[in-house]
Amino acid sequence: MANWYLETGNKSDIVRSSRIRLARNIKEIPFINKMRKDDFEKVLSITENAIGNIGYGLKFLLLKDMDKITKDSLVEKHLISPEFSQNQYGAIAINDEENICIMINEEDHIRIQVFSAGENLKGNLALALEIDEKLEKEINYAYNNKFGFLSNCLAAVGTGLKASVMVHLPALAKTGNINKMLNIISGFDMNVSGIYGERLSAKGNIYKISTKQTLGITEAETIKKMSIIVEKIIEQEKAAREILLKGNIELEDRIYRLYGILAYSRKISYEECIKILSEIRLGVDLGIIEELTDAKVNELEVYTKPATLQKYLGKTLDNYDEDIERAKIIKQIINK
Amino acid sequence: MANWYLETGNKSDIVRSSRIRLARNIKEIPFINKMRKDDFEKVLSITENAIGNIGYGLKFLLLKDMDKITKDSLVEKHLISPEFSQNQYGAIAINDEENICIMINEEDHIRIQVFSAGENLKGNLALALEIDEKLEKEINYAYNNKFGFLSNCLAAVGTGLKASVMVHLPALAKTGNINKMLNIISGFDMNVSGIYGERLSAKGNIYKISTKQTLGITEAETIKKMSIIVEKIIEQEKAAREILLKGNIELEDRIYRLYGILAYSRKISYEECIKILSEIRLGVDLGIIEELTDAKVNELEVYTKPATLQKYLGKTLDNYDEDIERAKIIKQIINK
Repeated sequence: MANWYLETGNKSDIVRSSRIRLARNIKEIPFINKMRKDDFEKVLSITENAIGNIGYGLKFLLLKDMDKITKDSLVEKHLISPEFSQNQYGAIAINDEENICIMINEEDHIRIQVFSAGENLKGNLALALEIDEKLEKEINYAYNNKFGFLSNCLAAVGTGLKASVMVHLPALAKTGNINKMLNIISGFDMNVSGIYGERLSAKGNIYKISTKQTLGITEAETIKKMSIIVEKIIEQEKAAREILLKGNIELEDRIYRLYGILAYSRKISYEECIKILSEIRLGVDLGIIEELTDAKVNELEVYTKPATLQKYLGKTLDNYDEDIERAKIIKQIINK
Repeated sequence: MANWYLETGNKSDIVRSSRIRLARNIKEIPFINKMRKDDFEKVLSITENAIGNIGYGLKFLLLKDMDKITKDSLVEKHLISPEFSQNQYGAIAINDEENICIMINEEDHIRIQVFSAGENLKGNLALALEIDEKLEKEINYAYNNKFGFLSNCLAAVGTGLKASVMVHLPALAKTGNINKMLNIISGFDMNVSGIYGERLSAKGNIYKISTKQTLGITEAETIKKMSIIVEKIIEQEKAAREILLKGNIELEDRIYRLYGILAYSRKISYEECIKILSEIRLGVDLGIIEELTDAKVNELEVYTKPATLQKYLGKTLDNYDEDIERAKIIKQIINK
């Protein structure tokens, strides 16, 4: 089975991926801001043992044993946060497909994460809850009958659930309606950000929408709320794409020229690559570019990321060589 | 046999084409600035008759009977001058390969022109003189034992010979040595100009070098002088290309990106096309671009010219559609 991020999924022309996160803590150990060295080690030992008993092909890996490129690559694929990658007591439990990635000693003792390509929040939630139940048989969770799951992080108390989707909105960005759209989403008590940094300069026109509320709401309600938002976004982006597409030879010309540049460049920076891939994904999704599939664009996106590229090639590269190797791998993926 | 301008020739990585022109006038008819309507008609009738007797598959065509696109296409291919294309008494005698194009009632009564791809001034001269001898048996030339062939145009008196070459000098242009080079050529009593207009803004980095002297010099001496110049230019351009090529991934990257744009654009103006083709020709000649041959670049150059494109498609186009059709034919030529 391929890594989830190389696959395409439900509505993945707009919804790039879905993530479910469940925050859990161990009853007999203090929350993260009060933990001492031996507490961190206790969490590691308890979770390593528990995870070893639940299956799913999960490998338990200590971050301190991993090299920088491997960790940076996990960050690039949004499997762990940049801050967590520096954590000397951190560990992850991850399967080969990388659709399950449990973070240990992050802001909570345990953060179960399940990922999918496309819109699959329900499926992800079901799998996350299944893992959660199995872990609960091994671990005493910090739980309160009134509030639900307890956490150091107030925003996680209750269900401990955070659902998020990465949405690709190039047409809304191009037609100038993106800010209006993002304001509406914020009004629904959701977080919005550009995945690579600030909200309004989202690289590659990819935005991350995530839920906020965890208290006084069920898991199913959270997912449902998010689904409504996602449907609204899809509707708006599709309408914007239709407007863009109408006999628009300029758009076709611009996107195909970028494809030509991508396919034939001999060196290309990550920044330029992201920008071009966003346009090209739009072109593929609009049926303009026939030379590529969504799956190939996924591959292009993943293997052109700096650390993932170096991880794949098995060597560290300076910026100059990185840009040359990026151009080479692009050609390989396009021509294979 | 293909049109000469679609072929490649001797040294054609730098010398795009060679032309020999012989200016001749008819003894019993006044020179061009003193001609009346019936004189023009007499020239047409004498030359049509003479040309009909010399062979070479020459067709005698009156400019006034030709449509605008056909005439503009001849201008684009540098077979006739823009001014001459407007001449209501003008005619041409041209063969299918278009390497022989005799202009009637231009600045002289008869201007024999012979063209080749690459450097072939000697061959062209031999053919032009052969045609000239055959015509001389049919026509009384205006000739003076002291001066040689007579002409309305003082610069043609004597041999009536003008030799010219089109040279492609992108590397000299890029290394900033083009002006120095052009000054040296001028010092040798030769004319230099950008073929599409002014000397210093030569489009596509193509320059036309032509001889000036016709009096007190033999045909063979003229050609020899030009050959020396051409060898010097080739040497300089080659040295500049070697400097450019040395491990220059930036150059490779820039040229290949332009190739990508050319190959995938959906609309492209003539101006952009000329600029890109000059870079691409350099890339082909430097062995950077493997996807194309010199012959294909010739085809791209010829069929993307505005009138030649419309002539080929058999319809007139506005600018918008012209740019779209240009992109289509580029794709056809590249992919065939």
